[in-house]
This record gives sequence, C-alpha cells and structure tokens, in this order.
Amino acid sequence: MPPAANESNGSPNKDAFQAVDPESRTQRPPINTRNPYQPVPDFLSNVGSFKIIESTLREGEQFANAFFDTAKKIEIAKALDDFGVDYIELTSPAASEQSRLDCEAICKLGLKAKILTHIRCHMDDARIAVQTGVDGVDVVIGTSSFLREHSHGKDMDYIAKAAIEVIEFVKSHNIEIRFSSEDSFRSDLVDLLSIYRTVDKIGVNRVGIADTVGCASPRQVYDLIRTLRGVVSCDIETHFHNDTGCAVANAYCALEAGATHIDTSVLGIGERNGITPLGGLMARMIVADRDYVMGKYKLHKLRDLENLVAEAVEVNIPFNNYITGFCAFTHKAGIHAKAILANPSTYEIINPADFGLTRYVHFASRLTGWNAIKSRVEQLNLDLTDAQCKECTANIKQLADVRPLNVDDVDSIIRQYHFNIKTGKDTPLLKGLDHPAPVIDEMAVDGEPAAKKLRSEIDQDATKCC
Amino acid sequence: MPPAANESNGSPNKDAFQAVDPESRTQRPPINTRNPYQPVPDFLSNVGSFKIIESTLREGEQFANAFFDTAKKIEIAKALDDFGVDYIELTSPAASEQSRLDCEAICKLGLKAKILTHIRCHMDDARIAVQTGVDGVDVVIGTSSFLREHSHGKDMDYIAKAAIEVIEFVKSHNIEIRFSSEDSFRSDLVDLLSIYRTVDKIGVNRVGIADTVGCASPRQVYDLIRTLRGVVSCDIETHFHNDTGCAVANAYCALEAGATHIDTSVLGIGERNGITPLGGLMARMIVADRDYVMGKYKLHKLRDLENLVAEAVEVNIPFNNYITGFCAFTHKAGIHAKAILANPSTYEIINPADFGLTRYVHFASRLTGWNAIKSRVEQLNLDLTDAQCKECTANIKQLADVRPLNVDDVDSIIRQYHFNIKTGKDTPLLKGLDHPAPVIDEMAVDGEPAAKKLRSEIDQDATKCC
Repeated sequence: MPPAANESNGSPNKDAFQAVDPESRTQRPPINTRNPYQPVPDFLSNVGSFKIIESTLREGEQFANAFFDTAKKIEIAKALDDFGVDYIELTSPAASEQSRLDCEAICKLGLKAKILTHIRCHMDDARIAVQTGVDGVDVVIGTSSFLREHSHGKDMDYIAKAAIEVIEFVKSHNIEIRFSSEDSFRSDLVDLLSIYRTVDKIGVNRVGIADTVGCASPRQVYDLIRTLRGVVSCDIETHFHNDTGCAVANAYCALEAGATHIDTSVLGIGERNGITPLGGLMARMIVADRDYVMGKYKLHKLRDLENLVAEAVEVNIPFNNYITGFCAFTHKAGIHAKAILANPSTYEIINPADFGLTRYVHFASRLTGWNAIKSRVEQLNLDLTDAQCKECTANIKQLADVRPLNVDDVDSIIRQYHFNIKTGKDTPLLKGLDHPAPVIDEMAVDGEPAAKKLRSEIDQDATKCC
Repeated sequence: MPPAANESNGSPNKDAFQAVDPESRTQRPPINTRNPYQPVPDFLSNVGSFKIIESTLREGEQFANAFFDTAKKIEIAKALDDFGVDYIELTSPAASEQSRLDCEAICKLGLKAKILTHIRCHMDDARIAVQTGVDGVDVVIGTSSFLREHSHGKDMDYIAKAAIEVIEFVKSHNIEIRFSSEDSFRSDLVDLLSIYRTVDKIGVNRVGIADTVGCASPRQVYDLIRTLRGVVSCDIETHFHNDTGCAVANAYCALEAGATHIDTSVLGIGERNGITPLGGLMARMIVADRDYVMGKYKLHKLRDLENLVAEAVEVNIPFNNYITGFCAFTHKAGIHAKAILANPSTYEIINPADFGLTRYVHFASRLTGWNAIKSRVEQLNLDLTDAQCKECTANIKQLADVRPLNVDDVDSIIRQYHFNIKTGKDTPLLKGLDHPAPVIDEMAVDGEPAAKKLRSEIDQDATKCC
C-alpha cells in the first residue's frame, strides 16, 4: 500500500482512473527526490475529485445551541452555496411544520448547490419529503445491533424491505436517493454489504457509511470503504463524528479508499461535539490537491461563513480552529521564526493567503530569536548591524523572562536600543517598562478573551509578513 | 492488513509480541459476531501500552498566548504528574536564564513523572541541559531539505556527526537521550532511516518522528513508523501537529504501527494551532483500551487540568472540545434521545462517568421526540399516559418552531398540559410563553457565551441521566 498524502497538483481522480490502462501501472511518474512520500498514484483515490454534502442545516441543527429561524437558514444556505459546496442537506420536513416550510423555502431559492433532506427510512417521511421540491433525499436507518435493539427494533429483512419501498418511491419522483446505514462501524459486515448490494442494484445514487458514534479509526475506515467500493457501483458518501478526534482524518482515508462524498458542517457543529468541520476538511484537502480545492471553493469566504454560523449558535470560534483560529498562522519559537522569514514553507504546509489570511511572527517572547528581531528592526526602518540585533535580542529575552511583553514593549526596547547606539547614550532599555503599557495580562477586558484581542491586533498589525 | 480499532481490553503489546510463537498466529481469538471490526490481534500495535510525553511546558510555551511564570509552571507540572503522564517535557534551558532556573526548580519537585528538556542538536545546549537535573534530554534537528536549506544549513554528514557527539555526551551523564528529526515527513526516507539506525546503534533510548508542519496523513504515518520499527530496536516517540486535522488520528496510527510514546499538550497548545491534545488522545485511547487508560490516568482530573491551562494562556475551552466541551455528551435529536434513554451505548462510545462527567438529553427543541418528553415527565414526577406524552410533545414541537425554548419553558408547558388533563380545563399551553422567561437568545449576558451558560445549567440540572 503506497503512502498517500502530500499530493500536490493533479492527484489521480476518477477520470484518470478510467483513462489509464491497468497494464501500464508500472509507468509511474518520476519520483520526487525532495519528498519521498509523494504518493504513487492510487487508482481508488478521490482526494482530487470529492464532493461536499454540507449539513450545517441538518446535522448542525442537532447541535445543542442551534436554533435557526427561517431567515437565518436562508442566509446560511446562500453563504454555503456561494462558498461552493455541492449539496446542502436540510432537516427532515417531518420533524416539524416549520422545518417543512423552511425546506420548501430553500428549495425555491434557485441555488447552484443541490438541496437534500434527510429522513428516516419510512414511507410517512418519504411522502412529505418528495413534495418539498428537494433535489434528493438522504434516507437513513440504524443497522447496528445496538440500534436495532434499542431504537427501532427491526431486523435486517424488515430494513431491506422498508429500504426498497422508500427508494423506489423516491426514484419514481425523479429525484436523487441515498441510502445509509447508521452506526455503520458497529454493524455486522455481512449485513452491511448485503443491504448495500441490494440497494445498489435497484439504483440508488449513493450509499452512505456513517460513524454515528465517532468510534472509527482511519485504517478501519480505509478497509471498510475499500471493501464496499468492490461491492457497489454507485457513489459512496461518508459521515464521521468527532468524539475520538478522527473526523477529518477518517474523511481523508475514506476518499483514499474510493469514497466520493464527504459530509461536513461549518465548525463541525452537530450532535455531541459534532462531525468533520468544513474548514478542517479544507485544510486537509488543500494539502492533498491544492488546484482542485482552489478551483472549486471560495476559500477566502471561509472566515465569514464560520463567523456567521458561530454567531447564529452563539459560540466563539475555538482558539485552535483550523485555518481561522487566531493562532493558526502564528509562529513563536526563535528557530521557527528564522526559517519562516527565510521561506514560509519551512514551517507552513498551508499558505494563509489562499484563505485571504496572513501569517504572523510572534517576536515578543523569551523564545524569540535574533532573526525575528532583525526582521522587526527592518520593519521599523531602523539601522542596526547583525551584532547589534543579537545584543538587542539578548536584552529582549532577558526582559521577557520577567513578564509577558507585547508588541509595543518590544518596539520601544528596540527604539531605545537604537537611540542609544546612534547617540552613544546609555539610557536604560527597561525604562519603557515603567510606563503603563498594556501587557498581555491586561488584554482580557470586557470579558473578551485575550486571544480575540490578539487576533484583532494581528489583523491590524504592521508585522504581517506574507 | 487487519482492521485495527475498537480494541477493548488487553490489546497486544510488546510483551505479547515477544511471547507469541510466530508460527501460532493462526490461533486467533473467536470472532466477535456483534462487531465485525474487532481487530485481529496486531503484534506491532502499542495501543494498549503507550506512554505520554507531555509537552505543555515546552511545545505549549510556543503557543502564541503562553507566558508561564515559575509558579504557574510548577502548578502545571504537579497537575500533569498527578494526572499520571509518564514524562514532562520542558523548554530548553538554553532559551533564557529563567527557562534554565525553572527547569532546575521542576527537577527538584520529586515528581513521579520523568522530567525531560528539549534542545537543539548542539553541544552548547547539551552542556547546559545535563546540569539541570533532568532525567532525560530530547534532541532535535531538522532533516528536511526545507530546514537544511533555510534553517541550519547543514548536510546529513554534519547532522550525523553532531548527533553522535551530543548523544554520547548526554549518555556519559547517565540520563535518557532521544534523537529526533524535525519535519520527518518531508525528509528523505533513506536519510532518515540511515541516521536513525546510526543513533540506535550507539544506544539512544528513543528516536523521534515529528510532523512539524502538520502535513502527514494517517496511512502515511502508519507506513513510516512500520518501516522504522523494522530498522531500530529502541523506543519510537512521535509528535504530530494539527494543521490539517490529523494529530489525534496520526498518533493512533503511529501506535498501531509500533510507536511507543506520544507527545501531547493540554488542549493541544503549541506552535500555530498546536499538537495532539491530551484530552483528544484520551478520548481516542479509552475507546481502544479502556482498562489500560483507566488504570493509568486520573481521567476525572482532565477537566481541572484543562481549566488550569486555559486560564493560564487566556483562552476559552473550545465549545467542541473532546470530552470536556460543553456539548460533548449532549443529545438532541428525538431519535437519538429515545435510544440514549434506553441504552447510552447506542449513541455514545465514551462513558462520561469515566471522566467524572454526565450526559444530557436536550429535549427543548423542535427536534425532540416523545420519548425524551416522557422521560422529562417522569423526572417531574407527573402522571401522563404514552398517548398524552405524544400529544404534549406535538405541542412542544409546535411552540419550538416559533422560537428557542429553554428547560423552564418546556417544563411549564408540560405542567400546564398535565394540569389541563387532570382538571379537565383547557388553559392555553402558550400562556407560559407570555411570561418574561429567559430564552436562549438572552442567555449570552456579560459577554459570556451561551455555551458556557448552558454548560453550567447542565451541570446543575436535574435532567442528568447517567
């Protein structure tokens, strides 16, 4: 099995698969000598041709804090469509009367994205769904022994029968149909493959694999999807919860194994701690196939999209959020700062500019190095030799040992040091610290976390260097 | 390659590997018919015997917001030790004078955990490190072409020579020594294996693989660690950044492939958006081997530990944090609530009680179901038939369509419905909504996010059901 990440540009996709003669698989591209992990093309992989089923308005509505009124749902649907997602999935119209009306309203918006709704495998729900104007219906039923025992109480024969009835009914209305098991990774493998083969034969558009409880691990996902890929000819959709931290990685491994569609939600909101986040998936996939991701999604709108949803469900963007977290492109250690200033690729696998963002080299700490300080000296348009920058850095590290410094502190130390050098004076560099300069400890005012303040400081700061 | 997750109890470890005759590998345990993904034992795997190198006080100090004074470092070190981590890694004593003094102070605490410090592969740093009283030294040098070109500018011969000098010096002081490459996944494979074999032969305790830029994917990690496992006989430590969302998954796959040590930090804090979080790793590993994790780590102290570090670096616990996020064990959709009430394992792979936490079934929304409402009726000690519960649920869903409801709203609707039933009256259930009851929209007061309020409401709430 070849290593399969770090694809850059033109990783294999379905078209490539169809075009290549299986006999000619020895015609490998020249090995990239700089990175031995450049993958040997894998003809199952869809990392360069995946589609997104965006479920903020279905899975996301199951998030503890979520209440979307009609106007907010429409605003979110439009923003998702503008971002470029392939599908938008909505709460079942059978959940409540307003859910049904909202579903109809969104179908009438004329978005580019296809509109789906997500229903139980039951004719009552299906009859309502097909009347809403959706482009497709996502049907789900629990197949694990846990769910068969404690949820619906049905056996596999019943499930197959119900599935066939619902699928044929939905197909008769000429709209897309997906059939998914729930809790797929705790279901019996033979049961699963058997029902998927059945529904594939009667013509579903997609089958779905769902890690409903978030227990699956990446190699387990690869194995199941790869097995399923050999059993069905339809598309394969995957849905991963994040309880054990693998929702992004599992999505990636599913695509490697031949899955075609990934479920996401903005910030990952959903039941419990949620599912594969849209932003996290973008971070993973842009590393795998930058051309595909850049060509398809408006990445510079990610931050606004996340802010929209975060405000709607009243949460803060996590400090460590993928790409848009306040520190995602902040570099601090001296050794990192030096290399980043020479070539950002040394410590960055993602270019923040691809997302309309900037990087930040944090030089105001005891971990700083003289390269970072030299860069700041140049930004301040001051004139110091390398030896002087090193001496100034030693002073800064000494002061930073005493208490947190902020950008203003360091700038005034540098300026004072420069002034002393040019005038031959010996004014204490410490003097600036006697001033009531705001320190990081004091930055958390008005209940606003320091992180948020720093992000906004970073946004306005002249130290941006990309 | 067998599927390899969901191990429960006694997954194979090194001892098992040594004890088993390779010829007897066909003696597999009986297949678990309820879960076909129960792994065939994998003799490389250390998912049931890993160790944690906790780096909050080294990698974590490189987090943008981190400034730990001596007292805070000692407080964190004691808390980590109490939690049960195997190693505590500290910032290089060569970084600043205070860093050196802090390192000495922590070494004198007499903790159970071994104390490490993390230095550049340079004799200047090594000479300082061995004088601090640490139990071991973690040496690192960049081996990727990026770092060799833009950071230290040395070739592989130079690196090997420097490594041997530092390793033999540290070993002569009878303390542990680890040698790690930096940016291992963008280094030349032959270079890597060559230098690891060299340092293994001269007796390092561990070699380290580091995904410094966060580019690695799970199967790539598995392949590299598995290859390395065949080359060196010493322990293998791994360090994963989270830029592309795989830091927990990669740690897990590394253990599956034979790695022995995982680097973590509390909340994952570190350069950029950080590394494998301690809590996220616990979530993953308790699913893999509950006995091992429960027997070794004081999981009920995780929340306090995270709060300690979050306060020190002035961030909020992310709303979707593993295990301790406010919604990690909150269930909302009606179909989920029903099954959770029957058997929590249906929609939970982790038992919140293992972490001293409780689950919460969210019944005040339009996605609620009658099983959740029935459970609430019983908690309120009211007497309604199933049919009445269903009718009451229909009313609640209708009202929840209009605007967000909170627990008080739903309780008053239930009580009013119950009152009407028992007295034969027909008082409108809506009446309660005219009262100025606090709604979720109004819960974000004093700049405190609603999430935090809800968490605290959940903590005090009678609806806990585990």
